[in-house]
Amino acid sequence: MQINSLNPEQLRKRQTELAARYEAVKAASLSLDLTRGKPAPAQLDLANAIDGILDGFYLLQDGTDVRNYGGILGIPEARQLGGQFLNIDPGLVLVGGNSSLALMYQYVAHMLPTWQRQTDTVRFLCPVPGYDRHFAICEAFGIEMINVPFVDGGPDMDQIESLVRDDPGIKGIWCVPMYSNPTGHTYSDDTVARFAKLAGRAGPDFRIMWDNAYAVHHLYDQPDRLANLMALATEAANEDSVVLFASTSKVTFAGAGIAFLGASGRNLAAFEKFLVPQVIGFDKVNQLRHVRFLTDVDAHMKLHADIIRPKFELVEKKLSSALADKGIARWSRPNGGYFVSLDTSAPIADRVVALASAVGVKLTPAGATFPYGKDPDNSNIRIAPTFPGMTDLDRALDVLVLCIELVAVSRALRE
Amino acid sequence: MQINSLNPEQLRKRQTELAARYEAVKAASLSLDLTRGKPAPAQLDLANAIDGILDGFYLLQDGTDVRNYGGILGIPEARQLGGQFLNIDPGLVLVGGNSSLALMYQYVAHMLPTWQRQTDTVRFLCPVPGYDRHFAICEAFGIEMINVPFVDGGPDMDQIESLVRDDPGIKGIWCVPMYSNPTGHTYSDDTVARFAKLAGRAGPDFRIMWDNAYAVHHLYDQPDRLANLMALATEAANEDSVVLFASTSKVTFAGAGIAFLGASGRNLAAFEKFLVPQVIGFDKVNQLRHVRFLTDVDAHMKLHADIIRPKFELVEKKLSSALADKGIARWSRPNGGYFVSLDTSAPIADRVVALASAVGVKLTPAGATFPYGKDPDNSNIRIAPTFPGMTDLDRALDVLVLCIELVAVSRALRE
Repeated sequence: MQINSLNPEQLRKRQTELAARYEAVKAASLSLDLTRGKPAPAQLDLANAIDGILDGFYLLQDGTDVRNYGGILGIPEARQLGGQFLNIDPGLVLVGGNSSLALMYQYVAHMLPTWQRQTDTVRFLCPVPGYDRHFAICEAFGIEMINVPFVDGGPDMDQIESLVRDDPGIKGIWCVPMYSNPTGHTYSDDTVARFAKLAGRAGPDFRIMWDNAYAVHHLYDQPDRLANLMALATEAANEDSVVLFASTSKVTFAGAGIAFLGASGRNLAAFEKFLVPQVIGFDKVNQLRHVRFLTDVDAHMKLHADIIRPKFELVEKKLSSALADKGIARWSRPNGGYFVSLDTSAPIADRVVALASAVGVKLTPAGATFPYGKDPDNSNIRIAPTFPGMTDLDRALDVLVLCIELVAVSRALRE
Repeated sequence: MQINSLNPEQLRKRQTELAARYEAVKAASLSLDLTRGKPAPAQLDLANAIDGILDGFYLLQDGTDVRNYGGILGIPEARQLGGQFLNIDPGLVLVGGNSSLALMYQYVAHMLPTWQRQTDTVRFLCPVPGYDRHFAICEAFGIEMINVPFVDGGPDMDQIESLVRDDPGIKGIWCVPMYSNPTGHTYSDDTVARFAKLAGRAGPDFRIMWDNAYAVHHLYDQPDRLANLMALATEAANEDSVVLFASTSKVTFAGAGIAFLGASGRNLAAFEKFLVPQVIGFDKVNQLRHVRFLTDVDAHMKLHADIIRPKFELVEKKLSSALADKGIARWSRPNGGYFVSLDTSAPIADRVVALASAVGVKLTPAGATFPYGKDPDNSNIRIAPTFPGMTDLDRALDVLVLCIELVAVSRALRE
């Protein structure tokens, strides 16, 4: 039954029912958390064998002792692994420490002086909703952000192409091209092909920050497929416009994985030179651990999927059964990644989050998925179902759907 | 016999002898390297057990799962360990990744905007000879460097105090206060006490970058003693002027250790805030490995000393037997650290390094121990004896002393 088809009396009745349920939840003193895309302990357990896997053998084929200093680009074996994640030649891969975010931050720091020589105000395009930590990097560097909406095949390329053509101050764009955070979009072949040609319009120092964080994070045996941006951009002689990122944070250990950056030979050499004053080399011992452990990434990721698929399916089941046909919210049904993105029909996301928080269910703050924390429609709520156990997730979702309907009904009554 | 007391005929005779020996060395096709302060494989072996030490236990006392995201300051147990290294309250410690250099770079990046608001040209004092990578950080940020010489108790404090009083553009100083790189100085109590009061002259945003890289790296049972700068600075209400650094790079693995930063509560909070956009947290699994492994740091460091002490003693023996009483070079006799610093009496360091290199003995480039790579006296040569085996070290030192005398004699002949 669509909420907006109810008459005032029906709305009041429903509000009373929901308010009573809300009071009951309050009495239960919950403490549940759906805020961050963290792997569950059972997922982390899958990689426990990584500590100790070296068994005293620290030498590489080429004689390098991974325990000692040196080598900013990473060990050849780990660059090979990075090539698999990023779908590029291992010679174009830098293997970093435990954080791809740190590589992104450093890459922006590296480019910023070049951009600032060309424009007073450096701007970045931000497909929204997106990843709050991308936006935080821009804020840290005073880079102005411009929202770009999603359409079916990914970010709205018509808008993007026209924006970069008209505004030479736009120097980059953040993308999570596969199982996008939080919407779950995997960019269509046409979208990727248009990204490959974007530098032709945007200029040689424009950078597509292609954060392929969920490259191997499929939920189903028939995964989404992402076209090869680097290959297409190279064909179009735009390889310098592309910088790729990935990590094993949600493959092995979230806090102790290894990160990958992929870039053209020219870009990689320039970035390596930028890093020289700040680091002698990243942790090669941990790189070697990962190489030894991740001999079959796909098989390992299936074990992850088996753990988190039921959680995503529970989200879908709960949202459907409580909200379908009420006309008050839409949500994503991703084939991979770490999030479900929900949009309320009315501008009530902040109110829903506050109401849930008041009864002990923490949700990502409304607006967090937008630059400057401002959701212009006040409608997006990011659901991160991987970390909680099934029982906690079930309870938390009950509260979420209750709050959504309660706020929507109350609002309809006031109108 | 002092070289400068020889007559031309004696000099020519000696030159002929040395030149013949140099030709013989050339024929031997050596390939030896005394350039970098790297631990030897036998030292790295001491920590091999660190991989696997967790044995599947990844939870902390407080319930934290070190495998998952979060916590920029580091795990409490590792902050405790850092407190030991830095000789401060663990609450003032940040535990980073595998590089203290990266923390120094980031700390300078963090302060730079503040400094730049106060002066057109930010300047740093650099006790010389010093650590090339400190100077490289300044170069990367366009910070102007001013050389300060060493006296017996450390850097020349009279000069430092007068410089910071007269030039408000001076915003910091690099120090390796114990077994200084490369001179081996441990700063005297008086020097440390004067550093503790320096901010009174230099202003509130002045920072002493106290890189205590060799805090526990003693060669002998009677180690040097370093006064507690943070305690003294706190007494003088100058605790904000002090930032301490250390790492386990030369304790466990050079490329895969953990790094420590110590700072006042106010500084630490500001620096943590600066780091938020660029990293979710450092590698807590490796932090926990170090805590489990380093239960007795002093005992572990004695094992290191047993391996490298003979190398330092070989350097002293070789230099003494070949160069003593010739009046052509002086050198340090450190009680710890990783280097011997040699100064030629004449400005010939570049020529010596080139001559040694031509017969396969690599030395740190002349000038590398000075800002901008420029040794004004062209006299300092840094000897890094830890990495080579005893036989290689012996050979390399033979070549070094040969080259020093050959160049000195040739120069004396031309005069």
